[in-house]
Amino acid sequence: MTSTAVAPEVTAVQTVPSFVQGAWWAPAAAADGVPVRDASTGEVLAKVSTEGLDLAAVVDYGRTVGQRELGRLTFHQRALKLKELAQFLNGRREEFYEVSFKTGATKIDSMIDIDGGIGVLFTFGSKGRRELPNSQVVVDGPMEVLSKDGSFAGEHIYTRIPGVAAQINAFNFPVWGMLEKFAPAFLAGVPTIAKPATPSGYLAAAVVRAIVESGILPEGSLQLVSGPARTLLDALDYRDLMAFTGSASTANALKSHPNVVTGGVRFTSETDSLNAAILGPDAVPGTPEFDAFIKSVVTEMTVKAGQKCTSIRRTIVPQELVSDVVSAVGARINERVVLGDPRAEGVTMGALASLEQLADVRAAVHSMLDAGGELAYGTLDSPSVTRADGTVGVVEDGAFMSPLLLSWADAETQEVHSREAFGPVSSVIGYRHLDDAVRLAALGSGSLVATVCTNDPAIAQALVTGIAAHHGRVLMLNREDARTSTGHGSPVPHLVHGGPGRAGGGEELGGIRSVLHHMQRTAIQGSPNMLTAVTGVWHSGADRNFTLESEGVHPFRKSLGELRIGDAFRSELRQVTLEDITAFANTTGDTFYAHTNQEAAAANPFFPGIVAHGYLQLSWAAGLFVEPAPGPVLANYGLENLRFTTPLAAGDSFRVVLTAKKITPRETDEYGEVAWDAVLTNQHDETVATYDVLTLVAK
Amino acid sequence: MTSTAVAPEVTAVQTVPSFVQGAWWAPAAAADGVPVRDASTGEVLAKVSTEGLDLAAVVDYGRTVGQRELGRLTFHQRALKLKELAQFLNGRREEFYEVSFKTGATKIDSMIDIDGGIGVLFTFGSKGRRELPNSQVVVDGPMEVLSKDGSFAGEHIYTRIPGVAAQINAFNFPVWGMLEKFAPAFLAGVPTIAKPATPSGYLAAAVVRAIVESGILPEGSLQLVSGPARTLLDALDYRDLMAFTGSASTANALKSHPNVVTGGVRFTSETDSLNAAILGPDAVPGTPEFDAFIKSVVTEMTVKAGQKCTSIRRTIVPQELVSDVVSAVGARINERVVLGDPRAEGVTMGALASLEQLADVRAAVHSMLDAGGELAYGTLDSPSVTRADGTVGVVEDGAFMSPLLLSWADAETQEVHSREAFGPVSSVIGYRHLDDAVRLAALGSGSLVATVCTNDPAIAQALVTGIAAHHGRVLMLNREDARTSTGHGSPVPHLVHGGPGRAGGGEELGGIRSVLHHMQRTAIQGSPNMLTAVTGVWHSGADRNFTLESEGVHPFRKSLGELRIGDAFRSELRQVTLEDITAFANTTGDTFYAHTNQEAAAANPFFPGIVAHGYLQLSWAAGLFVEPAPGPVLANYGLENLRFTTPLAAGDSFRVVLTAKKITPRETDEYGEVAWDAVLTNQHDETVATYDVLTLVAK
Repeated sequence: MTSTAVAPEVTAVQTVPSFVQGAWWAPAAAADGVPVRDASTGEVLAKVSTEGLDLAAVVDYGRTVGQRELGRLTFHQRALKLKELAQFLNGRREEFYEVSFKTGATKIDSMIDIDGGIGVLFTFGSKGRRELPNSQVVVDGPMEVLSKDGSFAGEHIYTRIPGVAAQINAFNFPVWGMLEKFAPAFLAGVPTIAKPATPSGYLAAAVVRAIVESGILPEGSLQLVSGPARTLLDALDYRDLMAFTGSASTANALKSHPNVVTGGVRFTSETDSLNAAILGPDAVPGTPEFDAFIKSVVTEMTVKAGQKCTSIRRTIVPQELVSDVVSAVGARINERVVLGDPRAEGVTMGALASLEQLADVRAAVHSMLDAGGELAYGTLDSPSVTRADGTVGVVEDGAFMSPLLLSWADAETQEVHSREAFGPVSSVIGYRHLDDAVRLAALGSGSLVATVCTNDPAIAQALVTGIAAHHGRVLMLNREDARTSTGHGSPVPHLVHGGPGRAGGGEELGGIRSVLHHMQRTAIQGSPNMLTAVTGVWHSGADRNFTLESEGVHPFRKSLGELRIGDAFRSELRQVTLEDITAFANTTGDTFYAHTNQEAAAANPFFPGIVAHGYLQLSWAAGLFVEPAPGPVLANYGLENLRFTTPLAAGDSFRVVLTAKKITPRETDEYGEVAWDAVLTNQHDETVATYDVLTLVAK
Repeated sequence: MTSTAVAPEVTAVQTVPSFVQGAWWAPAAAADGVPVRDASTGEVLAKVSTEGLDLAAVVDYGRTVGQRELGRLTFHQRALKLKELAQFLNGRREEFYEVSFKTGATKIDSMIDIDGGIGVLFTFGSKGRRELPNSQVVVDGPMEVLSKDGSFAGEHIYTRIPGVAAQINAFNFPVWGMLEKFAPAFLAGVPTIAKPATPSGYLAAAVVRAIVESGILPEGSLQLVSGPARTLLDALDYRDLMAFTGSASTANALKSHPNVVTGGVRFTSETDSLNAAILGPDAVPGTPEFDAFIKSVVTEMTVKAGQKCTSIRRTIVPQELVSDVVSAVGARINERVVLGDPRAEGVTMGALASLEQLADVRAAVHSMLDAGGELAYGTLDSPSVTRADGTVGVVEDGAFMSPLLLSWADAETQEVHSREAFGPVSSVIGYRHLDDAVRLAALGSGSLVATVCTNDPAIAQALVTGIAAHHGRVLMLNREDARTSTGHGSPVPHLVHGGPGRAGGGEELGGIRSVLHHMQRTAIQGSPNMLTAVTGVWHSGADRNFTLESEGVHPFRKSLGELRIGDAFRSELRQVTLEDITAFANTTGDTFYAHTNQEAAAANPFFPGIVAHGYLQLSWAAGLFVEPAPGPVLANYGLENLRFTTPLAAGDSFRVVLTAKKITPRETDEYGEVAWDAVLTNQHDETVATYDVLTLVAK
């Protein structure tokens, strides 16, 4: 075994290196390995082997060093590192594209993979700072008061899982697949062990090499295992998570491991599925929806040579439109698709990842033809393609395949709903009614994504609510979004990627949801003071520190660094007369009868008679708590959770108590957010209104 | 097989009936069955058998009839039925208590089970109406705009899973266990198949009999399988959910079923665990915390004879306090605990559920003693108990056992952290530092609940954040909540019940969280109009219907029944002069420099000079959109999501556009909630502020 500080360049005969325990590792030179070939030419690029690698030590390093180092950072600090890393990798894209060509990917395919992966880092870099606290504990939902006197309450927190995230990635998106799993784990504070797939792992290794060179990530937060990791699960337990992307059969083998079944390893899988696209009955030829549908079907068949877990495998269209769809798909392929080596000019569809992959896809198609499918477009013969040098012909060692469209006399044939050809292959089936379309879509037994293409809101509503529970994502395509849609096949970091049943039953991405999948939700119960201590957020009922009364310092005069949660201010009572209410009504124009007409107001089920405007209460409350002179409080940028609970009648008085509830310093600005708990009470100490005041406070 | 419309009374030799496919069912009279005995006397009460029951038909009935009937109801309508059912069962409690005594439960144990179960129905009946929409689709999180022009966006919805919830319950809480699983499934709209445990299933059957008699539930929403259901999983697939409570070994066997591993059945389990209670170093004898801790330990050992998955099995205390804790626990047991038949006067601790259970617990204790545990309190001899007739002595066929406290010289002994005696048995171990206590608690490899007993917020913070990721719930006990706490061992419907690792890795309860566990989360993408169509909630960017301009009707003049989402009102522009701002500052008292001092305002990083108060904007906006005369809009009860986005300088003008966003009719009131999207824009059409106005509108 050899460990080095600098990553070896991957050259033709070398083994793709792993990055473990803070150093580069490769098996002894003599070790055998699986050869990896250029998808378009068959040239041997590298070997893959992990012989002699101690995976238990890799896991242990993550659990100890990785957890320790990530534990020093808050969510915002981790998010900033993701942003920094995204910027760094953005500058290295050209070299990744060069490597990516070898996988059979076109430039556009590569951009989906590489730019897409970097985009995920940017999104989490941004969301982590906007949507998470600048601490290490996430509060989930409101406090629930569990005793009459308020002395006992409960709520939920998320804290990171105390182990590692072992991430098994698929061959088709070596960069995006790695980064979309890594980013949420990192943001959660959980160390990653990434294991790329053999056919394209050299591209993942090239990216990890750049990441290591950047020096941005804390020690132990990312390890790379370039090669077989069959014993990885042996080293995992309930503290850890395994996130798998790949075939259903491998997922099932892993799910059956005792450490998953009985050991409590958190296992999520995302497997390819028989995704559907449904054409609405209104979307006939000549409509923008029909055109958008055809375009989407062809895109999904040809991008990445159809090797996408999200590709459209089942095109479900009105029975009477089947032949129109078949013709239109064929015409568009003829017009747009140029098959060949992605390094050649003009090529729009590349090779499959490997000859093995090609053989698998062909076998699947044969099985579908045997089951009743008919070739409506394309041929199984080896296609003539554009070579890297621009010549055209059949390439013996290239994993090329023509796009294929199958049609089926019987839309219920099991093979169309269960057999997946993981390549440029799709099927067209007809439906008669919307219920029929919903039923056919559900025959996929759980899918990652479906498209519903219609411009009729009622049809969209019926189809989407009908199929939603069988899908992780549903795209509605119509003339309004046809040009701006991110597309059927593209997961976006903001939305969940995954699906029930055959799709693996997991969830990835979905913004902060995916960060929380790397954390344990725990109910905590205790007094408001103790809930405050654990969360770092002031809870209603906890002690307040009336700084003005005790020390003479208004909390608005404290800088972000001086301010403590619980610091509070209590105003004097101020009376609201009928004249005040009338004047407010006249100035603002808000002459709603409850503020102007005693008789009508008293007839309202909620008011005793004329009452003060809610907005008068808010405005006066600000007058009661404001500190007029310039100071650390820079602005009131918003307000949340306002509820008016007791009407304030003419003649009543009220006061405000303001308490520092949540303090969020920004990492990159000279100020931060402070949320203040505001409670208005009347002269009888009844609560009149409650809300949170959101302010920006200088450091 | 016999099916009847009326439930047979359970008498001594009868088989406990099942309620399936809308009728009562029991095997042919000749069928053998497992005898079930009175826990205190050994008397045979009934037999249990499902021989000949077609479980696939039961599942199919739920998926078809149950799904159809529940699908006719909204969340609020289902919630109301839960409330109605809770009220009905509340009136039948006395008869359930009588049956419950036979299980060995004391009156207090029975109340935890029966009243606790009814309480869960009440909680979900209330939360369902307060926290869910009055429809069938739950929107999860905000819309994410995915294109620059806003024409393409995404968000998440929850729709119910399209199958059944198969619920395998444990013997210790036959009523609570059934109802806490049933309530969230029902609220989600998912039909339940409840399978009680053999030793106490007759009590669950008695409750189901009352439920069926009530006629409150829709057909197919609840089926009961009273007896073995080993083939139930064979009939389930990815559309269904199985929620299991019981032993880890049974859970593991079920989790290994191919329909779980490869078939996609959503499987959650809640298994008993080695729950810890940690005494803080500050909580020395003489403090209220020490007393509360001892009381809690004894309660958890003796309630339900310690047969609770949440009981305290590991008492982790400062090394120097071990002997104090042992003495205090022993003293309190001696003082408070009277063992016997729960039907006898004065008995505070009943029998274990069965003689089999007793044998299991004794075997576990022997194994712990062999591993180094020492009996610090109690004896393994058959205890002398109070019989139902008040006499005292050993009962041969009664499953009685003395409370046992074990101490351990070596706190690290594996047996104390992994061997569970599911009875009135707990262990005391000592720790030296807080880190040590955290480590020892984590040795339980995942638990349902832990108690942290301290009055020091810093100690609470360190212990709770240290152990949280290993626990589903953590209770903080101190002098503030010692009297009002719901207790270590009692899950509450508002908070999650479940835990990682050995505790099963599942989540139950937790308020609406548990409803969502019965639903599929799906990302939906499309134009704002399509997102509006699918969710029934108006989305920013979707079409508005300016009713005032087109028909002359202000949307505030429309009743709840007439109002449609998208109905909108656009005001005229109104100018805000410096005089207006000054007047507002003087009236309200809000003389913050940004509104009163040009020079100081201009020096603020966010303002161009003097700007209008945010509260002026809100107040005037109300003046711009209000309809003064009495009408269907009854009150403005609150406001959400207010953000000030562009300062409004002196001399600027603004208008408001108000759009009906979400309409929630109440089932039991003559009005409902309407949320209005409010957008303020200035004379340059820049957005000045956005918020949601919350109103009550009459039907």
